[in-house]
Amino acid sequence: MRLHAYSLETANTPGRIITLTTDSGESDYFVGAMKGVILSFRPGAQIIDITHEIPPHQILPAALILAAIYRYYSPQTVHLAVVDPGVGSERRPIAIQVANQFFVGPDNGLFSFVIDQNQGARTVHLVNREYWLPETSATFHGRDIFAPVAAALSNGTEIDHLGPAITDPIRLQINRPQFHQNGTISGRIIHVDHFGNCVTNLEWNHLKSRLTEQRFRCQVRSHLITRLLSYYGEDATQPPEPFLIAGSAGFLEISLRCASASLILGVTVGDEVAIAT
Amino acid sequence: MRLHAYSLETANTPGRIITLTTDSGESDYFVGAMKGVILSFRPGAQIIDITHEIPPHQILPAALILAAIYRYYSPQTVHLAVVDPGVGSERRPIAIQVANQFFVGPDNGLFSFVIDQNQGARTVHLVNREYWLPETSATFHGRDIFAPVAAALSNGTEIDHLGPAITDPIRLQINRPQFHQNGTISGRIIHVDHFGNCVTNLEWNHLKSRLTEQRFRCQVRSHLITRLLSYYGEDATQPPEPFLIAGSAGFLEISLRCASASLILGVTVGDEVAIAT
Amino acid sequence: MRLHAYSLETANTPGRIITLTTDSGESDYFVGAMKGVILSFRPGAQIIDITHEIPPHQILPAALILAAIYRYYSPQTVHLAVVDPGVGSERRPIAIQVANQFFVGPDNGLFSFVIDQNQGARTVHLVNREYWLPETSATFHGRDIFAPVAAALSNGTEIDHLGPAITDPIRLQINRPQFHQNGTISGRIIHVDHFGNCVTNLEWNHLKSRLTEQRFRCQVRSHLITRLLSYYGEDATQPPEPFLIAGSAGFLEISLRCASASLILGVTVGDEVAIAT
Repeated sequence: MRLHAYSLETANTPGRIITLTTDSGESDYFVGAMKGVILSFRPGAQIIDITHEIPPHQILPAALILAAIYRYYSPQTVHLAVVDPGVGSERRPIAIQVANQFFVGPDNGLFSFVIDQNQGARTVHLVNREYWLPETSATFHGRDIFAPVAAALSNGTEIDHLGPAITDPIRLQINRPQFHQNGTISGRIIHVDHFGNCVTNLEWNHLKSRLTEQRFRCQVRSHLITRLLSYYGEDATQPPEPFLIAGSAGFLEISLRCASASLILGVTVGDEVAIAT
Repeated sequence: MRLHAYSLETANTPGRIITLTTDSGESDYFVGAMKGVILSFRPGAQIIDITHEIPPHQILPAALILAAIYRYYSPQTVHLAVVDPGVGSERRPIAIQVANQFFVGPDNGLFSFVIDQNQGARTVHLVNREYWLPETSATFHGRDIFAPVAAALSNGTEIDHLGPAITDPIRLQINRPQFHQNGTISGRIIHVDHFGNCVTNLEWNHLKSRLTEQRFRCQVRSHLITRLLSYYGEDATQPPEPFLIAGSAGFLEISLRCASASLILGVTVGDEVAIAT
Repeated sequence: MRLHAYSLETANTPGRIITLTTDSGESDYFVGAMKGVILSFRPGAQIIDITHEIPPHQILPAALILAAIYRYYSPQTVHLAVVDPGVGSERRPIAIQVANQFFVGPDNGLFSFVIDQNQGARTVHLVNREYWLPETSATFHGRDIFAPVAAALSNGTEIDHLGPAITDPIRLQINRPQFHQNGTISGRIIHVDHFGNCVTNLEWNHLKSRLTEQRFRCQVRSHLITRLLSYYGEDATQPPEPFLIAGSAGFLEISLRCASASLILGVTVGDEVAIAT
């Protein structure tokens, strides 16, 4: 038996996979209740935990993770995302059809990057209560609205049955890197990963030629970094010194061998990263 | 394709779902071993992690979570719960059939609230070793007894084959709220959730009319709370001040906008909550 | 319906289960990306999270967990393990067929104990890029190589199609206990579990007769332990005093009633445990 070359188009498990991305933690009843609702509405769904450890109420990290994972899932996958500080307020519950997949959650920017990366997103405002739990609380729409709607999409319900189309889903404004005339580039750290690598908003594809073909100087806070390595273990400095590297999600990272660059360098999300070539 | 109105009765995935609620953490081999045993005895089981982050040896939070989630699962679901400080001692291993579902674990109060909420629970003392692993340790019944018994129930084994019926499963004694003649109500904080909301033992349905129709004063430690909000984001005080809210599991909560009420107010499980109306 | 006596041989779910053991944490996109790749290559795979909380870059704890769980899984299970500080370097990616199961990950000792415990392991060096993602990064082989290879094995691909056989997979050298002529035994703490129990490298089967039939004195740092208990709750000392116990994975443990022996005694991985009988 042979695998085909990797192709999202040939993968074909229509509607069975529902992923979960939340800030609900894993120590409470929230996730268990959502899973129960999903499985009651959509028996046989394959529930995939992406993470429940988004920092409470932080939309940006969840939006980044969604943008980093959806491309690995097959068509018809439903991504349920609940980071929802505005639950119960006027903020709209929405569902989006984009990239042959579905996204369900609050309209607060969670899906910004997925929409940015794809043409033709179709967004609907979830107002059809027929697809919700019969009683909805004002404090847990993950269970009462988003879980049953995700199940409905997984069951094959057309997105237009869920509510009217809207064209103005909220998009996060994140700083874009600046490419100055004098050749300097300034970006920012937008994420610190589990290992302490500092992920910047600088796309590797845009920097590759500049960094690999000439000398550069990268400044972040008081630290000067002049090395670009191709894998984490390549560093042999003693004591370990920070280096740049092309991260696996396509962004430039600031790293330290087998240690947290964020903790040891004292840099974190929001810090400016200036590169002169 | 249309979803039916939500109904646990119409959901129908007999015996495939087995949920797990433990204090075993996610960094050890315990959960992986239990899952392997379940899948070896019951190939094709759909294992749903509720949580493995119950604080070690704490029975009450696990009992609360079980009571909060089971109603979202379909008939025949088996709930396996292992918070078991008395493993290996005289404490009985039990299985319970209640609310069209099954519960398996140690007899130490884990299932108190589920039993309280339903008539006609049937409890058996697990003594039939035919349904256990052939060798049982004195330190890990989750793997050796409860996992294979949960698999057996999921396979359709009748509960009475597992051991003799008993009528005295251990019930936790938790303080019930007191409704005093002078109109004051006193309850307690019984849980602090992942977001720092302080969940009380005061059922919203019992308080709704009193709190919404008149002024009230709620005291917890040195804090006086006089506002009832309907959703978390409704608060606009600057700096944020605590408020009461109807939590999603049906209990009154003490909350703070986008912050941990428990940490910032310095209140926690066990603290008294007094309400005067 | 009756369960057969527990037998891994009779369990039969060919190739559907893929377990995951990583140090990737649960707050990042890493695990979600790997799961997506697995499900795209192997629709319908049953993904079982063993743990993603291995301390970053620590190979030994992952190797111990793999050795502790695989025996509970059915034949054809694929165990995917990614603790990979050497990703992108010369370290080999490998797959192993042993004990009727498959193991996939970096060649850095992760599978040492599984190989030690079984005859006839067949190890291949993963070089056939046909089974990888078409583009591979130098920083995330878990997604780019190991996940699609695990899916291939689960699909029934023969291990020899993945690359040439090798006979020298890396084996961790861990200290073995020493049995001295004067009757003393010296071992070490090799793991502290979620509850704070200190797991030693002393196999219970080798010590059973000595400890149960005569007096012994066990020294770890400044603590003298003279009691062997059969279950955690058996201890009734006030205040609680440490004791030895046969742990559920087959090793002698140092424990404290309902508390972390490691934290309270101030002992941890690497500490010597000397027993005189």
